[in-house]
Amino acid sequence: MGVIDDLYRRALLAVADAGPVTGFVKQQGRHLGVSRFVAGERLPEVLEAARTLRGEGLESIFDLLGEFVDTEADAAAMTGEILTTLEALRSEPGERYMSVKPTQLGLGVNFDLGLRNARRVAEKAREVDARLCLDMENAPYVDGTLRLFRTLQDEGFRHVSTVLQSYLYRTKDDLNTLLEISPKPTLRLVKGAYRESEAVAFGDKAKVDQNYRDLLYRGLEGGATLGIATHDESIIRETEAFVRGAGLDADRYEFQFLYGVKPALQKRLVGRGHKVRIYIPYGSDWYGYFSRRLAERPANLMFVVRGLFG
Amino acid sequence: MGVIDDLYRRALLAVADAGPVTGFVKQQGRHLGVSRFVAGERLPEVLEAARTLRGEGLESIFDLLGEFVDTEADAAAMTGEILTTLEALRSEPGERYMSVKPTQLGLGVNFDLGLRNARRVAEKAREVDARLCLDMENAPYVDGTLRLFRTLQDEGFRHVSTVLQSYLYRTKDDLNTLLEISPKPTLRLVKGAYRESEAVAFGDKAKVDQNYRDLLYRGLEGGATLGIATHDESIIRETEAFVRGAGLDADRYEFQFLYGVKPALQKRLVGRGHKVRIYIPYGSDWYGYFSRRLAERPANLMFVVRGLFG
Repeated sequence: MGVIDDLYRRALLAVADAGPVTGFVKQQGRHLGVSRFVAGERLPEVLEAARTLRGEGLESIFDLLGEFVDTEADAAAMTGEILTTLEALRSEPGERYMSVKPTQLGLGVNFDLGLRNARRVAEKAREVDARLCLDMENAPYVDGTLRLFRTLQDEGFRHVSTVLQSYLYRTKDDLNTLLEISPKPTLRLVKGAYRESEAVAFGDKAKVDQNYRDLLYRGLEGGATLGIATHDESIIRETEAFVRGAGLDADRYEFQFLYGVKPALQKRLVGRGHKVRIYIPYGSDWYGYFSRRLAERPANLMFVVRGLFG
Repeated sequence: MGVIDDLYRRALLAVADAGPVTGFVKQQGRHLGVSRFVAGERLPEVLEAARTLRGEGLESIFDLLGEFVDTEADAAAMTGEILTTLEALRSEPGERYMSVKPTQLGLGVNFDLGLRNARRVAEKAREVDARLCLDMENAPYVDGTLRLFRTLQDEGFRHVSTVLQSYLYRTKDDLNTLLEISPKPTLRLVKGAYRESEAVAFGDKAKVDQNYRDLLYRGLEGGATLGIATHDESIIRETEAFVRGAGLDADRYEFQFLYGVKPALQKRLVGRGHKVRIYIPYGSDWYGYFSRRLAERPANLMFVVRGLFG
């Protein structure tokens, strides 16, 4: 299965990059079931989606779609939208949490621009009592993102977290470095969904999964607070076993799901006393995110195909 | 899958009980791949099998096949064979462990006969520095077996363990009662492989599995030493996660496999630092044991079918 899964993922991401496909899907999005995975294009819709989730015992984290920003002006515009979202969160009940991609802040233009905008966003988050997660993008941005994170930690922005990807060879070392921070950091752990070369990432699904487990146990043992952001039910079960064995406090970990994925499992985990947070993507720039969801598993593509022909 | 698995198991056990099938299989056993699951009919062969396993880092537990003994004379003969096996173990290196079925000792004739023979066997085990497990058979014998076990514990036979089956409704209460024993008992935890009615046992595989997990965690948290005797790879992974989380000493649990089942996994677990014990059935009365292995999963039946035609 590992090999087939990997081939499927690579094929789908390659097709999604082709111009005609991109155009068709962007045009037909509404008919393709994008709303299954994207809570909305506009802020009021997604605030409403989060309230509905909260009614079911689920926490949320907002993610403004949009990536690979490459000019200072675009970064300023995107940063402005993020600040607007944070301001809108101020009056929302429950835990406020926002995820941002460092390239949205201008990391791809240069580090200093990314840092300046990251500080503005982190300050705003503090002002509205929200937490902020610096998301992780593809391999070229890992160093910069970790440096951003470390800088913000050193400047006292303790409400900022970041993400590690188990498909990268380097992540084990990155985790060990992050565990030296005191107080211990908050990290989201994902497998990784970008197309990466074998020079930097495991090609074999079994190795990605095993690395995920190793990072998970090492992170919790090392004192980090972890967001277990995977839909892998085996790993979720094992996490439950580990935290029960370790007698971990419920605030030391949480399960994180993408909006629309395995809603029944989300609720079962809440029922078993775990904190569950839903990653809510929103905005008009949903294409890259949507392709990665389809690449993740054939069942998601079938959902789209059924929508087209059904 | 749960429903299909259960239907398969029930159908196979029903067919295995039919006279003509029994006759054919008993006659053709050697051609049907019985030796995949039964280490041998005679003691020297199985001692040799255990030595081979020990060379691979695997411990063993001997199990003399034969069940549903219903006369005092047969119980005496079977007890004699068990004593002979224990005597033969005296000069074997490594951990010595023998499993016996209480009906082999005469529990099905009457409790006192079973207890007298169990004492003789337990004394012999102590003499040769072996441990002894009172195996668990079908539902009518559970009360008697637990009473035997409790009596032997009270008489100071601390090297005696017993078995709990997660498919029985009663097992949760039985575990709680056993956890009151001090020092805490050693227990093997299995799902259960006999054909039982829904009056006493879960019919739904998912419930049997969930109960297994509950019993496993409760048992380890309650201080028992557990033999995790299942081939369910999810549960094995979760056990690994639990014991890592809990930081349990390696002598508080072990994984147990039946001879011939998932040998690659057995070795991987040894490689990851766990103790693994192989249940080695031997003797001429292998029919009931063999049918239960085939009933366990279609892959085992396919192994036999390939042997017949291949």
